[in-house]
Amino acid sequence: MTHTLAYGVQNATAPVAPLRIERREPLAHDLAIDILYCGICHSDIHQARNEWGGKSRYPMVPGHEIIGRVSKAGAGVTQFRVGDLVGVGCFVDSCRHCAACAEGLEQYCESGMIGTYNAIDPHGAPTFGGYSQRITVDENYVLRVPDNLDPAAAAPLLCAGITLYSPLRHWNVQRGQKVGIVGLGGLGHMGVKLAAAMGAAGVMSTTSAHKAQDAQQLGAAAVLLSTDAAAMAKHASSFDLIIDTVPVPHDLNAYIALLKRDKTLVLVGPLDPVGVHGANLIMQRRHIAGSLIGGIAQTQEMLDFCGKHNIVSDIEIIQANAINAAYERMLNSDVKYRFVIDIASMR
Amino acid sequence: MTHTLAYGVQNATAPVAPLRIERREPLAHDLAIDILYCGICHSDIHQARNEWGGKSRYPMVPGHEIIGRVSKAGAGVTQFRVGDLVGVGCFVDSCRHCAACAEGLEQYCESGMIGTYNAIDPHGAPTFGGYSQRITVDENYVLRVPDNLDPAAAAPLLCAGITLYSPLRHWNVQRGQKVGIVGLGGLGHMGVKLAAAMGAAGVMSTTSAHKAQDAQQLGAAAVLLSTDAAAMAKHASSFDLIIDTVPVPHDLNAYIALLKRDKTLVLVGPLDPVGVHGANLIMQRRHIAGSLIGGIAQTQEMLDFCGKHNIVSDIEIIQANAINAAYERMLNSDVKYRFVIDIASMR
Repeated sequence: MTHTLAYGVQNATAPVAPLRIERREPLAHDLAIDILYCGICHSDIHQARNEWGGKSRYPMVPGHEIIGRVSKAGAGVTQFRVGDLVGVGCFVDSCRHCAACAEGLEQYCESGMIGTYNAIDPHGAPTFGGYSQRITVDENYVLRVPDNLDPAAAAPLLCAGITLYSPLRHWNVQRGQKVGIVGLGGLGHMGVKLAAAMGAAGVMSTTSAHKAQDAQQLGAAAVLLSTDAAAMAKHASSFDLIIDTVPVPHDLNAYIALLKRDKTLVLVGPLDPVGVHGANLIMQRRHIAGSLIGGIAQTQEMLDFCGKHNIVSDIEIIQANAINAAYERMLNSDVKYRFVIDIASMR
Repeated sequence: MTHTLAYGVQNATAPVAPLRIERREPLAHDLAIDILYCGICHSDIHQARNEWGGKSRYPMVPGHEIIGRVSKAGAGVTQFRVGDLVGVGCFVDSCRHCAACAEGLEQYCESGMIGTYNAIDPHGAPTFGGYSQRITVDENYVLRVPDNLDPAAAAPLLCAGITLYSPLRHWNVQRGQKVGIVGLGGLGHMGVKLAAAMGAAGVMSTTSAHKAQDAQQLGAAAVLLSTDAAAMAKHASSFDLIIDTVPVPHDLNAYIALLKRDKTLVLVGPLDPVGVHGANLIMQRRHIAGSLIGGIAQTQEMLDFCGKHNIVSDIEIIQANAINAAYERMLNSDVKYRFVIDIASMR
């Protein structure tokens, strides 16, 4: 076991503070990784504060947008070498046997994926996330990060990036299609960039007029103000896909009406749909669906795509002792668009 | 123009009563049809009573589950002959040019399908439905009814039948799959029969234990009581498709949890989804969708399928002067499973 410095919480009301955790020595198929950067996802706050149905385990070390370098490789490792730039996303293991795992959809593992933090790993130990100096992960759950990407700005690709990339691919977005991204935050800004790189006309939908210029700089073909009823009516039945990233309850009906026949509104936040008129689904055979991050193979595909198109997240780098302040700013939507912890600041 | 005896309503609160309407003389591509039977759909009541957003036109002659015989054919008619047993469903025309019409999905016509009643036809005249002795319809919107089917019991296939057949086919139900049908009424009982004929294990889900035996007689492989939490949990993540026919608000979440990954809950009633937890969609990439009747080609395919498998609706035949009483019984769910008007009783 290796003592590792981490930042985490001791209970649901404690601030994020330094603590010591143990990491296992690399087994045959493991990589030991020196962490360079870790993004802060909104779900870190929810889990640190036990806001998801009492499922939080303490002490908790959040963080599942991890970029680091391989420092040690187990004897059986075949895909990575010491010094490789690698990423770890939202999970570090899964059953490897069920239909979902067999299809490379480990995030839907029928036994439940093993979360990068707040879970119990196959060895019986609690998992701790990326707000820490080191992590040990089976190589089959580690991603290769293209060398041309800024490592800090690549960190959010491991959660925010794949969360948007996966539905764009699963629903088969094509060049020239019209794709709506609802909400301009950590998830939404990745959606705008990825849709543009796929050749689709990404339309940012937001309630905030002042976000229009930002969205266009990110690559949005147009901005649609959801509060502008005339504009919304003009775009009715014209979208090939809409991805809704807004995590607070809001009327989905206005967005469903924007979809063409047989097209889908995809929820990627833990949102309970409200305001849905059945007739709005029935009259044009429209869909509402959910989508959860992506599998390992697709996450690697996403990273390679981002390498090719030079896509990273817009980030603000912070020191480890500023995590609590960052949480407060995130709760006030005061970040463009992702905080990333410089792990070198951890001491 | 031909004077035709019909039954209809003069306003939203009037009872159904005899009235006289005009039918056009058959144009080149028209068929004049002597109506034999017309089913009563729940939407007849909604529209007669102006319960769908003030869109009702009066006088109104409801009825869109029509079976009759061709009495006259226009000079340009190619597909039918005098004496043929035919059906007319929920629409009698559409734009014929849009993408939906081009794909044979006239029910989703971008200009709006022309309803069999309560619409304005391309000639500028109001459309009147099947509670009448005669109707004139363009042959392209008329269906051929297999001779081996009981004509009265075939009438509900034109709406209830296709409403269930279309999603079973669109979502590609295969032999051996597990299909849930929620609600045992005019729509649901057709779903059980059709799913069984397709070789799927149709599972009827109902809140009423006393409906279990009925459902099994109709061909249901099993009955799942939605009020039995243990049974519902046992069937979690096991269904390939669920079609929800229940027209009153109810918690959809319990049904969504029954779906396998990537599978769909289809709403076929004008139902506003309630009780949906976003996480329940996201964690297994599940869908909620709507579906509206079916196009002409698929409706013909459904009738041919029913002819081959000898499937009709379970019906209760009534006289025309009993329509008001039938409406009241339908509102009390007191029908197994569809009322059909014997048009010969109309005088």
